[in-house]
Amino acid sequence: MTYQAASCSEKHQRQLILADGKNSAQDERNAIGMLLVLRCEAIIVYPKFLSAEALETLIEQHETPIIVINRKLPHHQNHAVYIEHYHSSQLMTQYLLDQGHTRIAFIAGLPGSPSGEQRLAGFLDTLKAAGIAHDEALRLEGDWMPESGYRAAQTLLGRNVDVTCVLAANDDMAIGAAKVFLDAGKRVPQDISLAGFDYMLIGCYFSPALTTVHVPIAAMIQDAIGRLGAASQGDAIPTPPCHHQGRLVIRESVARR
Amino acid sequence: MTYQAASCSEKHQRQLILADGKNSAQDERNAIGMLLVLRCEAIIVYPKFLSAEALETLIEQHETPIIVINRKLPHHQNHAVYIEHYHSSQLMTQYLLDQGHTRIAFIAGLPGSPSGEQRLAGFLDTLKAAGIAHDEALRLEGDWMPESGYRAAQTLLGRNVDVTCVLAANDDMAIGAAKVFLDAGKRVPQDISLAGFDYMLIGCYFSPALTTVHVPIAAMIQDAIGRLGAASQGDAIPTPPCHHQGRLVIRESVARR
Repeated sequence: MTYQAASCSEKHQRQLILADGKNSAQDERNAIGMLLVLRCEAIIVYPKFLSAEALETLIEQHETPIIVINRKLPHHQNHAVYIEHYHSSQLMTQYLLDQGHTRIAFIAGLPGSPSGEQRLAGFLDTLKAAGIAHDEALRLEGDWMPESGYRAAQTLLGRNVDVTCVLAANDDMAIGAAKVFLDAGKRVPQDISLAGFDYMLIGCYFSPALTTVHVPIAAMIQDAIGRLGAASQGDAIPTPPCHHQGRLVIRESVARR
Repeated sequence: MTYQAASCSEKHQRQLILADGKNSAQDERNAIGMLLVLRCEAIIVYPKFLSAEALETLIEQHETPIIVINRKLPHHQNHAVYIEHYHSSQLMTQYLLDQGHTRIAFIAGLPGSPSGEQRLAGFLDTLKAAGIAHDEALRLEGDWMPESGYRAAQTLLGRNVDVTCVLAANDDMAIGAAKVFLDAGKRVPQDISLAGFDYMLIGCYFSPALTTVHVPIAAMIQDAIGRLGAASQGDAIPTPPCHHQGRLVIRESVARR
């Protein structure tokens, strides 16, 4: 992602400077503050902790153009580049239903993450629209890291419930979960299907290769830098030229029932 | 790695600024130049393309303290934080020999990479010391990416040679190679053993979990920032307090023959 941003900045004759948001909203605020002090021409924020509200306040307080990646901004839509994680999750869930799965476990992302919440909501709403009540015993906690997927799968096996498929809110957790199933002698996907989100490169080399949703990060960064290019020439930041959409990538980890 | 560097900088009451070296020695030089223009107090370089010679010249030309990670600097040892990739590769190769493997294929890293060359040299010298002639048919090219490990394994199978183990110069390529063997119906490690380098987190969740060498990146960054802390108080950069060593991490992907 930083490589994408650096290359794309170069194409616009700009040098990219990066600051790490570390692990809190205050850290992210400090990182943005440092980039402002350095008099950067424009700032792209990929927030993990700052809320949409806090980000909109920052946009209003500073003259430096700020674009936010992967977060919806209700009052500053032209400052936001995002994909519809809700829609991606609907796509994926509908695909799992179409393969005959109705007992699908869901491993959630870090609590409070908008991407994670949208993926969970897309999953639950699609089940509901298909007339399937979601069993609470199939809901599992995670924090995006593979270890949390591993623990979630252990919890799931311990519950001894009927389940034919596991959908994790990202690929890392799906791969963590797979380890538990394979070590328990279950075959993926013959005994249990598995899918994730994010199109992590390594998922393609996993056995079985992981079915996932591609998130067009490169296109999002190009869009952000393109909009900032217009803004730094004194024009207002243009409104979104297109909506970014996730794309279902069907590989080998989901079986038809 | 950037997170480690950012957190460690913070402990020393410093803000970390990052610049991406993109894809050439000139790009790396430009990134360092930008950090100099920004009047950073000190610069840590994690080079991919710049030679030791070019880095030593930069160190001599600029008053700003520069520390180089993962590269030996013959004339400025106190500016270099590195691990002995050669030694790590000896450790790993000796372990494979001890497990009874003598027909070991090696997938190399990107040509020209000092880390890759040291890993290859450590492998070849350890075989030689054990009295084993390395068969050229077991030497494979790679470029660090999983796809290159995948292609190397296809090439290896195509050669139809006797081989019981594959050592890849990094974990990514080992995982790429595994996909070919598993898809061809071979069991890892029962039919073919597999190992890598780098201790990539996801390798632990791979089935079988990947045997590898841990590279102490966090300790190396702490060392670099600690040395710079001394230098920015006007003292000379201290000489290395310790040598960083790789650690063999035995998991499940190598079988005893």
